[in-house]
Amino acid sequence: MTKKAVFYHAGCSVCVEAEQSVAHALDRSRYNLEIVHLGQQKGRLKEAEAAGVKSVPALVLDGLPFHINFGAGLDALK
Amino acid sequence: MTKKAVFYHAGCSVCVEAEQSVAHALDRSRYNLEIVHLGQQKGRLKEAEAAGVKSVPALVLDGLPFHINFGAGLDALK
Repeated sequence: MTKKAVFYHAGCSVCVEAEQSVAHALDRSRYNLEIVHLGQQKGRLKEAEAAGVKSVPALVLDGLPFHINFGAGLDALK
Repeated sequence: MTKKAVFYHAGCSVCVEAEQSVAHALDRSRYNLEIVHLGQQKGRLKEAEAAGVKSVPALVLDGLPFHINFGAGLDALK
């Protein structure tokens, strides 16, 4: 059974690097990866916050939030 | 050809969570993963710093450093 992986970003350069490296390095046979651009999909902000996401880029793996470097705080996207 | 992934940690709880989730989620068919405990392997600190690592846990993917959440600064491990 695959687990859920959601990569939240905002299109910033730090985000793009993390997406191309970390998110795309995940084992897709075990993780179902979704990429969410919080700047363009503001409706997903609440869901990201509920998962514990404070800044982007962030990767939520099977419900656990992992902040990868620092691009922008979520407040900057509201 | 597999790329190199090095996960640097210091045994802290934040590190353990990141290792079990992020490091172990990597696609091992594409990445050759090495786990380095910088508290126990202080000889590897210079190499980590040279790769741009500022704090642990950190993942260096194909030479690029990604800091995952924050456990401890490297200075605390010297």
